[in-house]
Amino acid sequence: MRKVRLNLGKRSYDIIIGSGIIAKLGGYVRRLDIGTDAYVISNPLIKSKFAKKITESLAKHGIRSKFKTVADSEKSKSVETAAGVLKDLAAYDLRKRVFVVALGGGVIGDLAGFVASVYKRGIPYIQIPTTLLAQVDSAIGGKTAVDLSTGKNLIGAFYQPRLVISDVSLLKSLNARQLRAGLAEVIKYGIIEDPELLSYVERNLLAIMKRGIADLEYIVSRCSKIKAGIVSRDEREELGLRTVLNLGHTAGHAIETASGYRLFNHGEAVALGILVACGISRRLGLIADGTERRIESVIKEAGLPIRIKGIGLQKIIDAHYRDKKFLGGKNRFVLIKGVGKTQIVGNISLKIIRDSIKERI
Amino acid sequence: MRKVRLNLGKRSYDIIIGSGIIAKLGGYVRRLDIGTDAYVISNPLIKSKFAKKITESLAKHGIRSKFKTVADSEKSKSVETAAGVLKDLAAYDLRKRVFVVALGGGVIGDLAGFVASVYKRGIPYIQIPTTLLAQVDSAIGGKTAVDLSTGKNLIGAFYQPRLVISDVSLLKSLNARQLRAGLAEVIKYGIIEDPELLSYVERNLLAIMKRGIADLEYIVSRCSKIKAGIVSRDEREELGLRTVLNLGHTAGHAIETASGYRLFNHGEAVALGILVACGISRRLGLIADGTERRIESVIKEAGLPIRIKGIGLQKIIDAHYRDKKFLGGKNRFVLIKGVGKTQIVGNISLKIIRDSIKERI
Repeated sequence: MRKVRLNLGKRSYDIIIGSGIIAKLGGYVRRLDIGTDAYVISNPLIKSKFAKKITESLAKHGIRSKFKTVADSEKSKSVETAAGVLKDLAAYDLRKRVFVVALGGGVIGDLAGFVASVYKRGIPYIQIPTTLLAQVDSAIGGKTAVDLSTGKNLIGAFYQPRLVISDVSLLKSLNARQLRAGLAEVIKYGIIEDPELLSYVERNLLAIMKRGIADLEYIVSRCSKIKAGIVSRDEREELGLRTVLNLGHTAGHAIETASGYRLFNHGEAVALGILVACGISRRLGLIADGTERRIESVIKEAGLPIRIKGIGLQKIIDAHYRDKKFLGGKNRFVLIKGVGKTQIVGNISLKIIRDSIKERI
Repeated sequence: MRKVRLNLGKRSYDIIIGSGIIAKLGGYVRRLDIGTDAYVISNPLIKSKFAKKITESLAKHGIRSKFKTVADSEKSKSVETAAGVLKDLAAYDLRKRVFVVALGGGVIGDLAGFVASVYKRGIPYIQIPTTLLAQVDSAIGGKTAVDLSTGKNLIGAFYQPRLVISDVSLLKSLNARQLRAGLAEVIKYGIIEDPELLSYVERNLLAIMKRGIADLEYIVSRCSKIKAGIVSRDEREELGLRTVLNLGHTAGHAIETASGYRLFNHGEAVALGILVACGISRRLGLIADGTERRIESVIKEAGLPIRIKGIGLQKIIDAHYRDKKFLGGKNRFVLIKGVGKTQIVGNISLKIIRDSIKERI
């Protein structure tokens, strides 16, 4: 078991990484003293797999629990779903000391975090990410969000969880495609600040895909540490430090939105977004050929897409211009100078963006 | 013109109180550098009265503006309305540097503040309260909220505005009942910590009701100062300091909810809530007879109700038990020991609460 501390003064919290640790949930909640009644937001499949363990662990410490499931789809991250969950939570909450548990992947984590952030102006919540993608990225750092039909993550809050429990044994339930999606974010961390992690992924892909517990613990804790460090220095993305975490996400979100969240999952879209960022970086003379080849190669080896198939260029460009990362009408990209070296560049010409997307279609 | 500073570190802001000062809005926005495009949330009546002044003042400083109106009703403070406004805002926002202006009373301020708090995880907003109630209370302190069908203000965030402009000349457009509603909150401030303010209201009721500019500036700035002081010491109501501001609001919210927001407006419900708090305080031996008589007398003289007519006792009790101020299933009331002296008491027996409401029916 490993522990990473995310330091944010009074709002600091632990990220616990280990195997079989959801059985300890009740004890953690007890020590944190965050409530007597858990409102667990999940999806039907995950609930069927892990509800019993969760409920038992909580009950052992005198904590009651209620599950609320939403469909396993990006569509569940809508304002409408959030409103429905909030009404259900309010009906459950009558005279209780309630806290939220997010049990699921990125969609559940973002939705549940948002619900916790706005219910009664904020109640405590715990993240129990069940996908690699959520364990290494979305469950950490307090970015909660739901989508509007016009764009992803347009509604949300910065609202930190009280604890993140990353139980890597849960990742055995993922299919290969879901695991690969998480690897896209792991590769992202390697590129932005951890050459050793990138090498590790290159060397141990097979063991990771076989869900080796030690390998998973290593990559999850390594990514958690990077993310915790960045978030503790720039929680609300005001200093530009946190922005590097958006590598691959600007074009990635546009690709996701343009495809209606169907053709590519988030990790796949991020992988493609990283490659678009490579293309822009090359056009601006920032990246060496060898670095770009190495990045494309590890993405390909990880079984992630390197081509945007099935979506028209103009659709991606249109979605791109609705991205909330536009500051005052100016675009802003995280670009790559080398493994472990990024640069944030704003106001890139439409032609360069267009060409860099086009060469991937 | 008077200025009150609300100190909250990086999130500090000014509350400007004066007559005719909405004409200076553009200059303020320019100096704060919060954006180039104002999204003004208001209601049709207020828009028809003040839109021209607002638009002109902004345009003079090169700032574009768009108005979005919602119905003038507590019903506009719903999750559904908020979702609709957010979609409209997202459609308007395309490639702009947008900020929100709340132009209206408490409903508009709470709704607009909530919209600003969750859009893109928070964009800047300005409060321009147009009622006495909003100027002395709801526009200050960053409590934003919308209602669920099961209870008032169940959804929201603590999210501070960048500026509050309290233009007392706008209060000339209020009818007597609306002005009186604001006086309920002014009386509340007097009771919780300003005996001089309470005496001032007792002595100058006529001048206030005639909208004397100097009188209004005095009471608005006095209340703003009290509220700013409390909020700066306990922004998120974690230390119990901010709780005193809820005097009259626990029973008040229950009365409002039970009446379906029809029979009594917020100020009237708060006045009745203060009288219920007096009754509980008497039953617990906290308040002197003379103090209670004085409070009832100033409420009556201000033209506010002292009887809860038209709602059944049980309906109020039921609504009371859904109030979000319950902590872990325990109720909590701000009680009165004297003018300027309050005490927070939890876990009051249902019988005492019931008797104190009943004697007001």
